[in-house]
Amino acid sequence: MVQQEHGSVTYGVIKESNQQESRVALTPEIVTRLKKSNIACVIEQGAGDASQFSDDQYEKVGATVVSRDEVFRRANVFGFINRPQDADLAALPRGSWVVGMLGSFNDPNYVKRLDQAGLTALAMEKLPRQLSSAQSMDEMTSQNSVMGYKAALLAADSYGSFFPMMTTAAGTIRPAKVLVLGTGIAGLQAIGTAKRLGAIVTGYDVRPASQQEVESLGAKFLDLGLDFSKGQGEGGYARQLTPDEQAQQQAAVDSKAAAFDVVITTAKVPGRRPPMLLTKAGVDGLHRGAVIIDCASSELGGNVEGSQPGKTVTDNGVTIFGTPDSASGVATTASNLAARNLADVVSHFASAGGMKFDLSLELDDALVVSGRKEGDGGNE
Amino acid sequence: MVQQEHGSVTYGVIKESNQQESRVALTPEIVTRLKKSNIACVIEQGAGDASQFSDDQYEKVGATVVSRDEVFRRANVFGFINRPQDADLAALPRGSWVVGMLGSFNDPNYVKRLDQAGLTALAMEKLPRQLSSAQSMDEMTSQNSVMGYKAALLAADSYGSFFPMMTTAAGTIRPAKVLVLGTGIAGLQAIGTAKRLGAIVTGYDVRPASQQEVESLGAKFLDLGLDFSKGQGEGGYARQLTPDEQAQQQAAVDSKAAAFDVVITTAKVPGRRPPMLLTKAGVDGLHRGAVIIDCASSELGGNVEGSQPGKTVTDNGVTIFGTPDSASGVATTASNLAARNLADVVSHFASAGGMKFDLSLELDDALVVSGRKEGDGGNE
Repeated sequence: MVQQEHGSVTYGVIKESNQQESRVALTPEIVTRLKKSNIACVIEQGAGDASQFSDDQYEKVGATVVSRDEVFRRANVFGFINRPQDADLAALPRGSWVVGMLGSFNDPNYVKRLDQAGLTALAMEKLPRQLSSAQSMDEMTSQNSVMGYKAALLAADSYGSFFPMMTTAAGTIRPAKVLVLGTGIAGLQAIGTAKRLGAIVTGYDVRPASQQEVESLGAKFLDLGLDFSKGQGEGGYARQLTPDEQAQQQAAVDSKAAAFDVVITTAKVPGRRPPMLLTKAGVDGLHRGAVIIDCASSELGGNVEGSQPGKTVTDNGVTIFGTPDSASGVATTASNLAARNLADVVSHFASAGGMKFDLSLELDDALVVSGRKEGDGGNE
Repeated sequence: MVQQEHGSVTYGVIKESNQQESRVALTPEIVTRLKKSNIACVIEQGAGDASQFSDDQYEKVGATVVSRDEVFRRANVFGFINRPQDADLAALPRGSWVVGMLGSFNDPNYVKRLDQAGLTALAMEKLPRQLSSAQSMDEMTSQNSVMGYKAALLAADSYGSFFPMMTTAAGTIRPAKVLVLGTGIAGLQAIGTAKRLGAIVTGYDVRPASQQEVESLGAKFLDLGLDFSKGQGEGGYARQLTPDEQAQQQAAVDSKAAAFDVVITTAKVPGRRPPMLLTKAGVDGLHRGAVIIDCASSELGGNVEGSQPGKTVTDNGVTIFGTPDSASGVATTASNLAARNLADVVSHFASAGGMKFDLSLELDDALVVSGRKEGDGGNE
């Protein structure tokens, strides 16, 4: 274990190593919040720059702004937006704690490496979201909410016509028709934002509850003429469909999509390849100038055939944006929310005697993915 | 005069020469409209590409798609989004007509060159907007409307926090505070769009009528504690303030702006240097992360000190976007509207005997800026 003076907890955050990342795992607002739990904060110089938080702002609320190396020396709990890359893993002191989205579902080897490095790791993706005490720790929900908002804005900004209907002296402009596939937190937020902008919005998801959720926002639910009512998966996520169901769904969605100007897909399933929601046939059916935002675009693939992170223009003039990190594009809000989620997790594990876990608690048992056998953990 | 077979009118449009321009002066919808006035259309191959109109779409409604040179050979009236550049001016046949925004207010020499080239030119910027018969020809209004919509979207997409208020398990996010300076067509559209997105919006303009217009959209009017009630200029545009008034206004706006997250400025005055609405002192007072969209940014300057076309980040972390051509960013809608405006002007001057003007008509007298002494014009 790292030496914890007087059992104190010091929370350290560095500038995210991923160049594409604009978020930061600690914001001035959250420094104040942690102080109330007797948790001190150290942060790397310039870590908040891309999220519009200056070193001055951190210092003003009592955080210590230091070099990256010094963060590693002074803290005993480290928060991350993206899981630590190799160089940072090597720099983390044995016995310290790490908290963030660790990708534990699809990369068990990474968890092993954390364990071998002597780190106690808290995997945000393993949060038991159904616990009411876990709600303010729900980083997936907070970031997906930002993602859905940003997806709708990006769609509106990229589409060559208006989202709202407009009546002008030079004629009436019809509103844009927007289809949102995957109506979890991100999809519902995308629906709400596109509706705010005046578009005609339709949603679709395989979960039976989704129709009511979509309609409660005043949007239409896409009628595929198919029954996937057994689609409700564990933890509120869409299960993967059977191959036969997938084929039926794809054909129906592909065919219906042709009537829309904008398609936003948000069906991420943690740790699995995202389900294909729009195949090449669907993309080919869209009109020239149509815009697709694929929020599930990733190394594992996306919801849309042919999408890849960044911008792709198809032969038939459809623009596909693969936006794996769109929450990062609303960096100030996304950072504040993620920092709050991370801080509430850290506070949960912090006690007068330092960081402790109790595997008999459902929350602790779910979140602690490495260092479970360390002496300082376990029952106190 | 160019040889007009049987006195027919053929309207020709080329791909805009300005590389930044995505709009096109003729769209398939408008080809159909012109056909009803017995006006044939020829268009350059690929001219509609950036606006998402394919050559096929033009041909399907009866336009002839040809090379650039062939457009110059076949047409006798030519429509432009941006006024013809030197090479295109040289290619326009003597005796033909040109219609578009010609910049005649601030460049009389250009008009002289049109005259010397033997062209009859219709200057869209000279449209007598108060005539009810001119409303569907009002390109400035249609494009400014698109500009205001796009400015609000760009602001929302660039700002690091949410525009709407959001209540989440990880805290409540306050709505963005948006200030719109200059509340003509563009400003009112920006106000409406920012409000749709859930922002708290305040507007300001020196015209006395503007307070009521701003408040009718549900936005607040910025109270500077100053009286510029003599500010109403001709044609509904803001007049330039006296130096003393400008100093008072600047100091007040600069000081009040500090409370806002986003500032959108839209005070273009045709043919004049845009009024300065936010000086360096105002920009310096904004918080880190604030976003400014200066729609008046141009070669003549902008509404914001230090703005220039494109993106500028100030020392205090404010991002300024100078967006001289933001209507071009909503190319499909903007093209449809502009094409309609241009087509209605062309139709007005088209008769069974070809293109004619009658300087005794207010509309004709205003629009015809060159070729006024040609034999074919004048009273018929």
